[in-house]
Amino acid sequence: MGHRLGPREVRQRIREGQWTTPTAGLASGFVQANLVIVPEEYAYDFLLFTQRNPKSCPLLDVTEAGQVEPAVAPGADLRTDVPRYRVYRQGELAEELTDITPLWRDDLVSFLLGCSFTFEQALLRAGVPVRHLEEKCNVPMYVTNIPCRSAGVFSGTMVVSMRPIPASLVSRAVQVTARYPGAHGAPVQVGDPGGIGIADLARPDFGDPVPVRAGEIPVFWACGVTPQVAVMRARLPLVITHAPGYMFITDIRDTELELK
Amino acid sequence: MGHRLGPREVRQRIREGQWTTPTAGLASGFVQANLVIVPEEYAYDFLLFTQRNPKSCPLLDVTEAGQVEPAVAPGADLRTDVPRYRVYRQGELAEELTDITPLWRDDLVSFLLGCSFTFEQALLRAGVPVRHLEEKCNVPMYVTNIPCRSAGVFSGTMVVSMRPIPASLVSRAVQVTARYPGAHGAPVQVGDPGGIGIADLARPDFGDPVPVRAGEIPVFWACGVTPQVAVMRARLPLVITHAPGYMFITDIRDTELELK
Repeated sequence: MGHRLGPREVRQRIREGQWTTPTAGLASGFVQANLVIVPEEYAYDFLLFTQRNPKSCPLLDVTEAGQVEPAVAPGADLRTDVPRYRVYRQGELAEELTDITPLWRDDLVSFLLGCSFTFEQALLRAGVPVRHLEEKCNVPMYVTNIPCRSAGVFSGTMVVSMRPIPASLVSRAVQVTARYPGAHGAPVQVGDPGGIGIADLARPDFGDPVPVRAGEIPVFWACGVTPQVAVMRARLPLVITHAPGYMFITDIRDTELELK
Repeated sequence: MGHRLGPREVRQRIREGQWTTPTAGLASGFVQANLVIVPEEYAYDFLLFTQRNPKSCPLLDVTEAGQVEPAVAPGADLRTDVPRYRVYRQGELAEELTDITPLWRDDLVSFLLGCSFTFEQALLRAGVPVRHLEEKCNVPMYVTNIPCRSAGVFSGTMVVSMRPIPASLVSRAVQVTARYPGAHGAPVQVGDPGGIGIADLARPDFGDPVPVRAGEIPVFWACGVTPQVAVMRARLPLVITHAPGYMFITDIRDTELELK
């Protein structure tokens, strides 16, 4: 189910506990988003962090403090419409929940950030294979030595996702993803993992390893896990995020994020 | 001289024999072009070859048979306004000339094709270094195993030029050059010379070798030498081209070739 349902129907099923697995492929054609919820006290710093690191943190929407219905998904409830949440206290993962209503407070501000699912569909349409989709696993992600620009309490280095691309399609992969600045945009690096501090492609920091075959070039895109790491490093009393792969589904169409 | 002169003034000086060296850097901001002149009998096949191989053969202008003034350079004379010509007979280089007026015939058709000088200036403006310009030598070019689409008597494989690009700037180099489809556009391959039949980057088939340093990726663009090789292979009784590096300077501005 879910591939042919619209975003409103999928959110409804998630809210009712009928969908409890990752959201890849759900509500095809609609933008899925990373979710970061911080207390209002830290919202300015986090907003500034997204402004200063737009490749990692392509901002789609910010709610008013306490609000649970984002502008990009009328009728949604950010407390219930993600299949799995992560709750961090003092920077440590405290628990995973399917409903954060019991934790809700009037001072919580929710940030929705674009996600690579959008450009992966565009890559497939353009004939560029996406290895981790072929392998039915999570994309491999790596902490790099590329510094983020700090903002208040938030700092860190960029996390990147890696997709092995045939050498003859790298150019096309760059051009296709460049059209989606709202979903991390063009790659940040091509072909030299050591140059950004990645010692071993077979040992990602997050997600699953995928094979890089002869004639393929490892291509690196900025990743939405970057702000999660920055938020953990800040050791805030409370931060809530989606669990990796369990995204929030918006009413924005993928095509609306495309530069024309 | 020549950097601040307009294209008309530069062509005038070339015509008068005052400029006899390669044209790189002349009439800055204006499009320089590859020139291929074939007898009318073969013009249809060559035109079709450019249509079928647009990355290698970005067509800017085609004259009427016998005409020496192209639409892209009013007042020019294609017989005298290139500093150095190559004359091929039966596919063999017969002579190099600075004036082809004595060879002119009413059945000769001239083709002007975009050249990478245009996108190299754009790369430099975008902060992407261009190694062979730093080294003050010719760009290295390689015959690949990428087949051209044949057209009549013309066939062959693609010739590519190679520029070593820092891994963190490959993405930008793709995006910048993609905006110039009239000057070969985006790269045809990134990072795997063996995959397109290049055995040794240090031994180019044309031009000069350049160093590829640690952290740099060899990036390959389609090259205007491709049609020259196809034309030589066809062993026509007579073909005239510019000599490599001695281009025809048009009145088109580089910015006019840029996709907006």
